[in-house]
Amino acid sequence: MTQTNLSDTIVALATPTGVGAIGVIRLSGLEAIPIADGVFPSKELSKQNSHTLHVGTIRQPDGHILDEVVISLFKGPRSYTGEDVVEISCHGSNYILQEVIRLLIDHGARLAEPGEFTLRAFLNGRMDLSQAEAVADLIASSSASAHQLAMQQMRGGFSGEIQALRQKLIDFASLIELELDFGEEDVEFANRDDLKDLVGKLRKLMQALLDSFKLGNAIKHGVTTVIAGRPNAGKSTLLNGLLNEERAIVSAIAGTTRDVIEEVINIQGIQFRIVDTAGIREAEDAIEAIGVERTLEKVRQSSILMYVFDVIQTQPEEVQADLERLYQPGMHILVVANKMDLNPYTKYEHFFPSEEKERALQPAADPSTKQKEPVQLSNWVPVSAINKMNIPHLKEKLHEAVINDKVSLDETIVTNARHYQALQKADQSLADVLKGMANSVTSDFIAMDIRQALHHLGEITGEISTDDLLGNIFSNFCIGK
Amino acid sequence: MTQTNLSDTIVALATPTGVGAIGVIRLSGLEAIPIADGVFPSKELSKQNSHTLHVGTIRQPDGHILDEVVISLFKGPRSYTGEDVVEISCHGSNYILQEVIRLLIDHGARLAEPGEFTLRAFLNGRMDLSQAEAVADLIASSSASAHQLAMQQMRGGFSGEIQALRQKLIDFASLIELELDFGEEDVEFANRDDLKDLVGKLRKLMQALLDSFKLGNAIKHGVTTVIAGRPNAGKSTLLNGLLNEERAIVSAIAGTTRDVIEEVINIQGIQFRIVDTAGIREAEDAIEAIGVERTLEKVRQSSILMYVFDVIQTQPEEVQADLERLYQPGMHILVVANKMDLNPYTKYEHFFPSEEKERALQPAADPSTKQKEPVQLSNWVPVSAINKMNIPHLKEKLHEAVINDKVSLDETIVTNARHYQALQKADQSLADVLKGMANSVTSDFIAMDIRQALHHLGEITGEISTDDLLGNIFSNFCIGK
Repeated sequence: MTQTNLSDTIVALATPTGVGAIGVIRLSGLEAIPIADGVFPSKELSKQNSHTLHVGTIRQPDGHILDEVVISLFKGPRSYTGEDVVEISCHGSNYILQEVIRLLIDHGARLAEPGEFTLRAFLNGRMDLSQAEAVADLIASSSASAHQLAMQQMRGGFSGEIQALRQKLIDFASLIELELDFGEEDVEFANRDDLKDLVGKLRKLMQALLDSFKLGNAIKHGVTTVIAGRPNAGKSTLLNGLLNEERAIVSAIAGTTRDVIEEVINIQGIQFRIVDTAGIREAEDAIEAIGVERTLEKVRQSSILMYVFDVIQTQPEEVQADLERLYQPGMHILVVANKMDLNPYTKYEHFFPSEEKERALQPAADPSTKQKEPVQLSNWVPVSAINKMNIPHLKEKLHEAVINDKVSLDETIVTNARHYQALQKADQSLADVLKGMANSVTSDFIAMDIRQALHHLGEITGEISTDDLLGNIFSNFCIGK
Repeated sequence: MTQTNLSDTIVALATPTGVGAIGVIRLSGLEAIPIADGVFPSKELSKQNSHTLHVGTIRQPDGHILDEVVISLFKGPRSYTGEDVVEISCHGSNYILQEVIRLLIDHGARLAEPGEFTLRAFLNGRMDLSQAEAVADLIASSSASAHQLAMQQMRGGFSGEIQALRQKLIDFASLIELELDFGEEDVEFANRDDLKDLVGKLRKLMQALLDSFKLGNAIKHGVTTVIAGRPNAGKSTLLNGLLNEERAIVSAIAGTTRDVIEEVINIQGIQFRIVDTAGIREAEDAIEAIGVERTLEKVRQSSILMYVFDVIQTQPEEVQADLERLYQPGMHILVVANKMDLNPYTKYEHFFPSEEKERALQPAADPSTKQKEPVQLSNWVPVSAINKMNIPHLKEKLHEAVINDKVSLDETIVTNARHYQALQKADQSLADVLKGMANSVTSDFIAMDIRQALHHLGEITGEISTDDLLGNIFSNFCIGK
């Protein structure tokens, strides 16, 4: 991103390209209204009130009418960017939209860079950096939970929490810096016990925020979930059952699925990116060997493993061996006992409490006492993928694996990797403050570490920002936002 | 299209789907404002003035914020549809847009059918039928000339002309029908010579409109132009030269191009759909024979034929023979003499006036005196396709083939096949009027034919319309318009 020049007036298409009834062109800056006046002879916009709508025509210099439009007039600072903003609703023809933008450029506007409208909103104090980032997340959100987190952040929920933390630290930092002025006198304006107490509280709060990132990231990008199991365990059939449509090639020949297939399903507002994999077994040819290696790689990268096995063909010892092979620390494992329609009670009888025998496809009781460490199974889920029996229950289990009673989406959740890193660095600086006090270092070192923590917290909301940082953030926006 | 119920309030996404900064949802009908008030607690819209903008939040029934939006308020009849219209500018996330539309439906709106907003504009007298049709053309327009014609029509240029014709006829029809009231008395309120005179003038005007359809249709859909010629004449190279990029597979092996390739180029605001073809020669295999037959088929369907020949390899008699084989009545032919860089003056010297010998690649003088009937060659254009020499001149010739000094785009041009058919029928009825008068038929028959002509003219602007006709027209619109 080139250096932003706030004196330019910028223009861009704000709606998606494609066929539609209308398309909206957005113009922002000092000259937005005079430039619009130059192409819209129907009314003098500069004499109109803010927040009003004006119907008229856009004319080319030769007098030809380019379009009949509706103009929305927002006078700064009561606008998205804080500047004068003119939005032009045109007929949704790409030809017209291009020509109108070209005409506005001829009249002195310049094409906006990605995110430049929101960047101006930030630079003009209409929103802080974390809120601006949430705008992009909001537009990208494709599930109820991702939307809710982005909306919370855009409305300042996250910023509020960070700013409260920061304010308390600033008060302390001021007191400590005051001590420095008295140099030799060895005064302590800032009570060290109070400081230790505050830093401890702050770190606990930060830890909660840091912990929330795993969930936040999963919700924002979708929860990576891998289906693995032996050949013919019914992995593809299970994926189809979850998707409710035919997608993977399903056949009775072992080793059919060689490519890694990824599908997205939405369970109660949370997106799961479900990856079907080649069967894990000793591969018989080179291509299959690559498939098996990819499976293990995918398992390592995922948050949830759905291990599927065939209740007829697979021995409990084999299940146990597979799980030990696949297990990764921090991973949530769901064990799916498939083909329960064929013979649910032969080898796996002991997993089902006797009173449940009559309702074959109900979830089994927690059998974790029967499992050896380190594999912690949250649940066995008996299903018949081909008949879609008990699939709704499996979906509930998937949802529970992400949202459990410990977390509510109404709490503040970190969804942004940049914020996560800044929180980590701030936490590290606070750890240094505590260490310094324990070692009785001088006030100036403590003050420096506090300032460092403040710096990192300030990066989140944008009180501290650099052109590079802003360039990085806003270049990922779409043009017109 | 089901029967339109104007008492419903309709809702639809007005902007294209896809990623964008904003998306606009349009709501129209009696309940548009109360329904919007139900989801927008920020302000009471029913108490606000028309043509104003309102910033606030859309909330779900549980109080969760769905989006921060800007609402445009248009109170009927000062709106697109003539009804109360509320437009909601949301963040451009498909998730948000879907949820807002769902919420509005929960509050009593129904999803609009294609073109239903414009249908309401027509039914509420905000525009006539021909203008409504022009809205769809305007959105679909992808070239300057197509846009200009649609804009003219939408602003009533075409309707005005039709209505003027109709009004004159109505005056006469009234006089003739008055005669019928006097039955036996054999009076003539309508002067028969004046009527003959008027009908003659009307038919002349109609003929001009009917003639304009060929151009109008070409501009709207692009001018079909076929490149044909013997193998290795350089057809694909010429297409590439016109396109300014490599597209067709070019090789020195005769018969390379077997598939019909279609490309669109824009010359001075007019779109040409240019089709490259297999070489015309006696085919050596079955696949090639199909290619040659397709070429001839394409030539029959096109408005312009660019016949290309190799000035070194092809004899003038062969050129003449090819042109006679390809010629179709009403077709515009451009003869392109290719490979002029190799040897421009051997066999074709006589086509170039001697004073032009020094500027080898200028257009040749009209050699039509040397051509036998029926082939009328408008021009020979000497080029070197591989060097792109004289290609700009060829483009000018293509443009001239569509727009010549007889037609200006500022005149009224018929672009719509439905209008063309209605004009044809009206013209036929007027011919019947003249025939009736020549045969001295009674006034009631003449009145009937005039009424028939009025009926067909009325169909164009929608003074005469049926549900079927409206359904046909508006079902081709996009949803949200």
